[in-house]
Amino acid sequence: MYRTHTCGELRLEHQGTQVSLSGWIQTIRKFGSITFVDLRDRYGITQLLFGESFNDQLDAQPLGREFVIQAKGTVTERSNKNPNIPTGDIEITISEFTILNAAKTPPFTVQDDTDGGDELRMKYRYLDLRRNIVKQNLELRYRVNRSARNYLDSRGFMDIETPFLIKSTPEGARDFVVPSRMNPNEFYALPQSPQTFKQLLMVSGYDRYYQIVKCFRDEDLRADRQPEFTQIDCEMSFVDQEDILNTFENMMKHIFMEIKGISFEDAFPRMTWDDAMEFYGNDKPDIRFDMKLVNMNDTAKGANFKVFDDAELVVAICAKGCAEYTRKQLDELTEWVKRPQIGMSGLIYARYNADGTIKSSVDKFFDEEKLKGWAAKCQAEPGDLILVLAGKEERTRKAMSELRLEMGERLGLRDKNVFKPLWVIDFPLFEYAEEENRWVARHHPFTSPKPEHIEWMNDLSKYADIKANAYDIVLNGTEVGGGSIRIFQRDLQEKMFAALGMSPEEANHKFGFLLGAFEYGAPPHGGIAFGFDRLCSLLGGSETIRDFIAFPKNNSGRDVMLDAPSAIDQAQLNELKISLVK
Amino acid sequence: MYRTHTCGELRLEHQGTQVSLSGWIQTIRKFGSITFVDLRDRYGITQLLFGESFNDQLDAQPLGREFVIQAKGTVTERSNKNPNIPTGDIEITISEFTILNAAKTPPFTVQDDTDGGDELRMKYRYLDLRRNIVKQNLELRYRVNRSARNYLDSRGFMDIETPFLIKSTPEGARDFVVPSRMNPNEFYALPQSPQTFKQLLMVSGYDRYYQIVKCFRDEDLRADRQPEFTQIDCEMSFVDQEDILNTFENMMKHIFMEIKGISFEDAFPRMTWDDAMEFYGNDKPDIRFDMKLVNMNDTAKGANFKVFDDAELVVAICAKGCAEYTRKQLDELTEWVKRPQIGMSGLIYARYNADGTIKSSVDKFFDEEKLKGWAAKCQAEPGDLILVLAGKEERTRKAMSELRLEMGERLGLRDKNVFKPLWVIDFPLFEYAEEENRWVARHHPFTSPKPEHIEWMNDLSKYADIKANAYDIVLNGTEVGGGSIRIFQRDLQEKMFAALGMSPEEANHKFGFLLGAFEYGAPPHGGIAFGFDRLCSLLGGSETIRDFIAFPKNNSGRDVMLDAPSAIDQAQLNELKISLVK
Repeated sequence: MYRTHTCGELRLEHQGTQVSLSGWIQTIRKFGSITFVDLRDRYGITQLLFGESFNDQLDAQPLGREFVIQAKGTVTERSNKNPNIPTGDIEITISEFTILNAAKTPPFTVQDDTDGGDELRMKYRYLDLRRNIVKQNLELRYRVNRSARNYLDSRGFMDIETPFLIKSTPEGARDFVVPSRMNPNEFYALPQSPQTFKQLLMVSGYDRYYQIVKCFRDEDLRADRQPEFTQIDCEMSFVDQEDILNTFENMMKHIFMEIKGISFEDAFPRMTWDDAMEFYGNDKPDIRFDMKLVNMNDTAKGANFKVFDDAELVVAICAKGCAEYTRKQLDELTEWVKRPQIGMSGLIYARYNADGTIKSSVDKFFDEEKLKGWAAKCQAEPGDLILVLAGKEERTRKAMSELRLEMGERLGLRDKNVFKPLWVIDFPLFEYAEEENRWVARHHPFTSPKPEHIEWMNDLSKYADIKANAYDIVLNGTEVGGGSIRIFQRDLQEKMFAALGMSPEEANHKFGFLLGAFEYGAPPHGGIAFGFDRLCSLLGGSETIRDFIAFPKNNSGRDVMLDAPSAIDQAQLNELKISLVK
Repeated sequence: MYRTHTCGELRLEHQGTQVSLSGWIQTIRKFGSITFVDLRDRYGITQLLFGESFNDQLDAQPLGREFVIQAKGTVTERSNKNPNIPTGDIEITISEFTILNAAKTPPFTVQDDTDGGDELRMKYRYLDLRRNIVKQNLELRYRVNRSARNYLDSRGFMDIETPFLIKSTPEGARDFVVPSRMNPNEFYALPQSPQTFKQLLMVSGYDRYYQIVKCFRDEDLRADRQPEFTQIDCEMSFVDQEDILNTFENMMKHIFMEIKGISFEDAFPRMTWDDAMEFYGNDKPDIRFDMKLVNMNDTAKGANFKVFDDAELVVAICAKGCAEYTRKQLDELTEWVKRPQIGMSGLIYARYNADGTIKSSVDKFFDEEKLKGWAAKCQAEPGDLILVLAGKEERTRKAMSELRLEMGERLGLRDKNVFKPLWVIDFPLFEYAEEENRWVARHHPFTSPKPEHIEWMNDLSKYADIKANAYDIVLNGTEVGGGSIRIFQRDLQEKMFAALGMSPEEANHKFGFLLGAFEYGAPPHGGIAFGFDRLCSLLGGSETIRDFIAFPKNNSGRDVMLDAPSAIDQAQLNELKISLVK
């Protein structure tokens, strides 16, 4: 038996007990003839005391950091207690020990403030995973997983596994494909989500389904995307949007309480997509702070200031208490909005000074009275700073949304320990894909239009106005989940495929099984999927999902530890009846 | 709101309540001017009563089987109660109803004793899944999943997700591979198991890991194999074999109690691999019945009966109470062993008659005294039948193992409601692969040899004798799990790779990350993986795992519902930089 206790378990009450511990050496300190070792395992750290009699043995076979040892001894009260760790009152006076495995010096320090860079830690991920900070992230992930499961189990949801080797139906993101040896020249696809399967399960009468499941998208990786990611995937029958929002709002509340000890008494706020775009400039508002976007077209145009008069949109935010921003700070912000990622040509500002005067960067065109009009429009008060952008509508709104977040950041209004969930509802059904020159589904082709907008599907000019029974849950400015009420009638689903430019043959080839299923008694149904990696990272107070994935890939989709992907044997290619194109 | 209650919920105590139900029409019966409808959902069946006033509406818009309807009405006591269903005391007197979705006539009856054949039911799997018998299987699977999770959670195991896009390391079964678009001409592989990852997690100090996870093997499919299957995958640190057997024996007991209400008081029996082969002829003995194999070489040879004298192995079983088998029955058995799957040239028998006489099919060579010797050797008593096979050792043992199972079947000794788990331990480390002309790992290359056999790894002639710290858990003659204590030292792992014929370069190319990990403080560890599909099918009393998978593939690895795998666009191939070989 390797151990009687873990390294996090022993207390003063165990004094005098003979114990056996196993673990990793965290530190070794020598005081005179005594050697102290901190022994670490998943559960904690316990101090071992090697008396003088071990000196010969330790000289002959020196211990080192990260060595794995087994040690036997007696639990003893420490003279020099450490109140910072739960085992800090005791130490083990060692009578016998064995080196189970030696360790080379790690390529970086296995500590929270490690000296290892990103690539190095990815290559030696098994050492990075030893760091307490990483371990806590994976523990949090595990607890969120359990918490979600417990909630869903208690509400009658059934965990049902759906297949990973499915059919490629290019629509939306790119599929990863898997050549089939048994069916040469044919390919499976890895699921981008279990969407159609969970809908079939509703058709089959399973009523409430969930799965915490890997999904795959072969997309060019942005900073914080992974080719494989995990969803909490859910679907319910005989529900409308209200049932779904209630059910999953309660799940989020359950998780917040269990994981963060935070109780949300009130219902999560809800905002239409139209309002989100107008007041926050994007569809995932960070509502930890206000600073809404104000449309200034009426107020700002017509003063012969060409920048405003030519603009599709003049938009402002009011930064509370920032009137005293220095020239340098304002220049910084101006440079910030001119960066290529933001792409504006300049920033206009107006200071509403504490003494009640207003000064702007465009005083030539706007007198104090006009500027007071700006202030009124923006609900600015003395001491506030009004920031204004103008230009093409879409880009300007997006830029102002970014500037708002930047100002929130600078003003410390985006505390990662404050959680502000928000439902965004009434999404548009379609969006126009410029590069493809066609309308595509904003959520996915299975999303139900609002019943009162169905007839607009016959009129292309109305497409932009058609709203869907689709919703996102947004946490602190990040989308953590999204879903919709689904189409469950064959004729409406066919109409939807047609609207997306699919011929009946193509629709039937790709989704014939689903269209077929809708003819044999499909119930009304809807669902939601949560980005599990993202949810965990937000709950853990981190920006990067990679910190919450045991073995993540880098930005080129590579696992640098495994060195994958990699070349495969010609024999494998032959069996699969494929060849490489150089 | 679509419903106030489910179709399984209402009782006499709800009498007089206004309710709303939604579900599928199971049956429609007309009695005079009254129409009775059985409405079904996941939770049960409730009878609806449509009074005379609905006749016009029902004539205009007739209801049909599998229609989805919503109905409102009052809970009423039934005059004609049905004691077979929980809602059988009541019916709903309907005041209003809506057809939510019509249904075509299903291609087969949605009943336990369906008229649909295998292929048809696979194509319309979403209808097959409606059948009560299939639903119960998936519910059982869900309950086993929860039961295993609850046990493992309570024992400190952490669910940690490992990647699906990994590196191809051909060794053992064939990998499914995934071409990488971002890394052209390189491939990921889908995991055959998370083996190396869970070992790395032990190196990282996670101590106890589990995952209920999909695995993939591109093997030619036998009757009851699937290209994707699910494992309960577990690993522990600082353990020896005894710790693992105890931990997972308790998990099995926990599951048996929760799922079947069966309590196992005693420890599961254990059998060495050598004994399993000797007494049962295979490594997964069905110990629901005895009928052990008896080696008759000493007893049966030397009587000038050429069949025995030339045989490598003469082996017998004693079928209790079968002395009265008719000539016809014995001929049948003889034909059975001569089938190509069994491949024997004949069957010899000896009846130990109730009157104490013994008659055999080889009386010419064996007098009654010699046959009494057989009986003594086989512990046969008057009334028993001794069956003997002779020939090449391996084939004969295998044939007798099959014959034993066949006799167990014929004698009703293999009751699927009786559960007899068994640990088989001390597996050989290697087995010889004739076609490859080399030794391969019997379990996998990470399995630890018994410490006392390590030195034999330097001596090819000893390879067959080297035993591993490897174990299987067998249930009713089927392997439901297997695992081992792992190698955790770099030098031993290198020795193992070399023994399997890998050059150091190859070992490093394929498993460099693991060899590296073993140098930075790897703890002793071991684990086990359960075949989850198989475990569920056994607990559900079925032979076929497909019955316990929501969307299984057929024997050609095809999903006939989706029509997958399928051809993909040339554009996709171009992006992936691969071409098809016709």
